Amino acid sequence: MQEHAIERLSVYRRIARQLIEEGDERVFSHDLAAFTHISPSLVRRDLMSLDVKGVPQRGYRLDELVNAIDKVLDGDSELRVGLVGVGHLGRALLSYYINRPTLRIVAAFDVDPLKVGRLVHGCRCHDVRDLENVIRELDIKLIILCVPAAHAQSVAQAVSALGVRGILNFAPVRLHLPESVQVEELDFTTSLEKLAYFSRAEPQRRSWSHENENQG
Amino acid sequence: MQEHAIERLSVYRRIARQLIEEGDERVFSHDLAAFTHISPSLVRRDLMSLDVKGVPQRGYRLDELVNAIDKVLDGDSELRVGLVGVGHLGRALLSYYINRPTLRIVAAFDVDPLKVGRLVHGCRCHDVRDLENVIRELDIKLIILCVPAAHAQSVAQAVSALGVRGILNFAPVRLHLPESVQVEELDFTTSLEKLAYFSRAEPQRRSWSHENENQG
Repeated sequence: MQEHAIERLSVYRRIARQLIEEGDERVFSHDLAAFTHISPSLVRRDLMSLDVKGVPQRGYRLDELVNAIDKVLDGDSELRVGLVGVGHLGRALLSYYINRPTLRIVAAFDVDPLKVGRLVHGCRCHDVRDLENVIRELDIKLIILCVPAAHAQSVAQAVSALGVRGILNFAPVRLHLPESVQVEELDFTTSLEKLAYFSRAEPQRRSWSHENENQG
Repeated sequence: MQEHAIERLSVYRRIARQLIEEGDERVFSHDLAAFTHISPSLVRRDLMSLDVKGVPQRGYRLDELVNAIDKVLDGDSELRVGLVGVGHLGRALLSYYINRPTLRIVAAFDVDPLKVGRLVHGCRCHDVRDLENVIRELDIKLIILCVPAAHAQSVAQAVSALGVRGILNFAPVRLHLPESVQVEELDFTTSLEKLAYFSRAEPQRRSWSHENENQG
């Protein structure tokens, strides 16, 4: 599947779980489209590709939808996550992700002796010098990287050599890694600068967000 | 300019500033391409559109490049930023953004009486009930939204009615706002789920990141 399709499935699943929590059992594709700001025809195409069947006048069952997306996104085995860099952002992410059922953060790492050995939001913080042992022992396959920019490349290289398959990079640098390692960058500054640019713009140059949603 | 072009300019500028800090004066387009993982021909096209001239064998002057990008991204007037929701993530963002020269966070907002009236990483935290006064008084045009999901829509609506032009949304919900308000979503969970999906995948379905970079 393509990147944008995977993003949409992730969003549908979050909305579907939210609706289930609120007591709903079913959803119409046009409601899902309205909730997600994705065109109804694209929503229907995505649901068709998941092999989830809707019933006219009644819509799609939310539990079937979530199960079908689970199969695609979560795969057969859990990928365990480690977090490197327990600064302000690292702590924020630990507090958010520590209790998730899948993609659980199982270990944190830092250089600060005041943090090493402690629990941070329930997660054990290890010395970054123990990266190799802990990653191997806990079979960590994804790393969330929240270290300062100057250290991001060296940490990323180290974990890549230990069999880590994916890195979610919050450091504001581009990483150079073997192609076998997936990198996803979350770049706050670029998002904020982009927002500022389009906030200044005339209405006619503001259509990008909709263009973007309709990409395959 | 298009969304992806603006993103690339933001990235070029960050790299150029980093190189200047390291003592460099010039850069070749192919080096910029290597640093940013963007194709050399696209880098050259972007630089041409900025009207920055390179010299054969010597490359582009970094200061000219930064100035040219400043003109596009920063515009004539500063856009002031407010942050709503001083939890773990809000604090992390305040510590990161409080000292920037442009797009400065000038006020924070929270409901917690223990936070209201205090300085958080040097930024004054106001009562969220004073949103209207403070946004008008400080002429805030961009809002960083770090409130819990259940409150995101109501806060976003409130600030939109106060003349805010753009919202950087960290809450894991899709906002429904007038088209005159730009929204940029930073969705950690979708990024992590996408990373997990492509980390599990066979090499042949891993080409998406490169595809993506070559989009116009």
